[in-house]
Amino acid sequence: MNPQGGYEFEDLVVGQSITIGRTVTEADIAAFAAATGDTNPVHLDAEYAATTRFKERIAHGMLTAGHISAVLGTRLPGPGAVYVSQSIRFLRPVTIGSTVQTRLEITALDEAKGFVTFACACTVAGKKVADGEAVVMVARRATA
Amino acid sequence: MNPQGGYEFEDLVVGQSITIGRTVTEADIAAFAAATGDTNPVHLDAEYAATTRFKERIAHGMLTAGHISAVLGTRLPGPGAVYVSQSIRFLRPVTIGSTVQTRLEITALDEAKGFVTFACACTVAGKKVADGEAVVMVARRATA
Amino acid sequence: MNPQGGYEFEDLVVGQSITIGRTVTEADIAAFAAATGDTNPVHLDAEYAATTRFKERIAHGMLTAGHISAVLGTRLPGPGAVYVSQSIRFLRPVTIGSTVQTRLEITALDEAKGFVTFACACTVAGKKVADGEAVVMVARRATA
Amino acid sequence: MNPQGGYEFEDLVVGQSITIGRTVTEADIAAFAAATGDTNPVHLDAEYAATTRFKERIAHGMLTAGHISAVLGTRLPGPGAVYVSQSIRFLRPVTIGSTVQTRLEITALDEAKGFVTFACACTVAGKKVADGEAVVMVARRATA
Repeated sequence: MNPQGGYEFEDLVVGQSITIGRTVTEADIAAFAAATGDTNPVHLDAEYAATTRFKERIAHGMLTAGHISAVLGTRLPGPGAVYVSQSIRFLRPVTIGSTVQTRLEITALDEAKGFVTFACACTVAGKKVADGEAVVMVARRATA
Repeated sequence: MNPQGGYEFEDLVVGQSITIGRTVTEADIAAFAAATGDTNPVHLDAEYAATTRFKERIAHGMLTAGHISAVLGTRLPGPGAVYVSQSIRFLRPVTIGSTVQTRLEITALDEAKGFVTFACACTVAGKKVADGEAVVMVARRATA
Repeated sequence: MNPQGGYEFEDLVVGQSITIGRTVTEADIAAFAAATGDTNPVHLDAEYAATTRFKERIAHGMLTAGHISAVLGTRLPGPGAVYVSQSIRFLRPVTIGSTVQTRLEITALDEAKGFVTFACACTVAGKKVADGEAVVMVARRATA
Repeated sequence: MNPQGGYEFEDLVVGQSITIGRTVTEADIAAFAAATGDTNPVHLDAEYAATTRFKERIAHGMLTAGHISAVLGTRLPGPGAVYVSQSIRFLRPVTIGSTVQTRLEITALDEAKGFVTFACACTVAGKKVADGEAVVMVARRATA
């Protein structure tokens, strides 16, 4: 562990995983829209959303990607990791009040580069809403 | 155009592009952290950030991805588009006060599925900070 | 259209209109209160609001005016327009969860000044909650 | 005074005035954009704003109107007042860091309707940035 509580490269093994839940609120969607400027009416206009295939307002897909970022940045590997890349497929809509379970599992460790690859899956009530792959760079332990 | 001002599939051609700027503020980072729970100290703790390779607080990489989402959801193709997937590489840090120019260009149109593929590039002061590929599904014009 | 996607003066005609919906959330009211300092308890204190004629918390009237500003600034005429003046009458309260439909229609074009006048009407479930008049200045197309 | 600290109709006289200052921050602009969806780039994109007549990002005009609403709703007449109407002219841009002084003065009292009319003027460094007229309805003192 580094002083901020993040894992160091030597702490990590393939197969290590974590699952973190978060309930998506109207306030989360409002804050995401604020942060990014993504005011697409499917997220903010209940009457329009009712006319779409989704029947109600849905969360921004990239808010779900943000849950992945949150797990990487705060838990596994946690502070100190540097985001290299992310791919994500949006499989089902996430409605307000849904609890998204974000599961990350280490699938590869690149010793030379210090890169760690994670399989990412987000589920709501047992159904996958998004999946993808994250790569982050993790520092090695300081040596004396 | 659909009634929400979004493009319909027939309106789109390969090579069509758009560039939108947005200045990243402290408030944006706070809002993104609130929306997602990504409280990684490199974004929120100036003293810690000063000890990192970045020397100062940086924006969440996924906030930059959110800029791509905002252009897709509000401008090209705009409201009505359904996000299918996104890949993104984080190439350089984005510091507070940077203006991110997000450029999307249509690289492929899949007539059968209604899928539109975009090359995405985010730059700050002419240097690429992120790039990737987005796929969205766009509805065809209603026919009588 | 200008490069930011806004209309130029020559693009506009009397009678042109647009209607945009947005659902008013608790988060919107909190953000408006934060932005302006308008902490009137009828917006923020549910117990006090229950003792008023409104029976529940209501949105700031000026938040509804902000919806008009948003349509002007992002859709019609969009980026590049300069706000000259606004009048607004507040006709009915807007409660949390209401979807406000904001309709703007061009009623006059002043060729000499580049001024565009809009009739503004905001409705919730078909009932008018506010109306007024906006004037914005719109640039002409650059000539070679 | 009513229990929330607001004036009652009998407390008010023509000529009564108040001036309240507030410094406009980047966070205020971000919060206003969040509350309303007004993401006009002249407020959020420093590079675009630099190309406009304003040379830098400016506050939303309706944010200045929000300062008037704040004074009405929290100070004079304060809680209990019901907003009837507002007119506002936007005379000069308000840049980030400006302190807006909002002055309201009672110009008319309509005994029959309980309406109070205010002349409104917002200044920055002694220069008027906006002016207009507000009408609010104020309750009379409860009689035994």
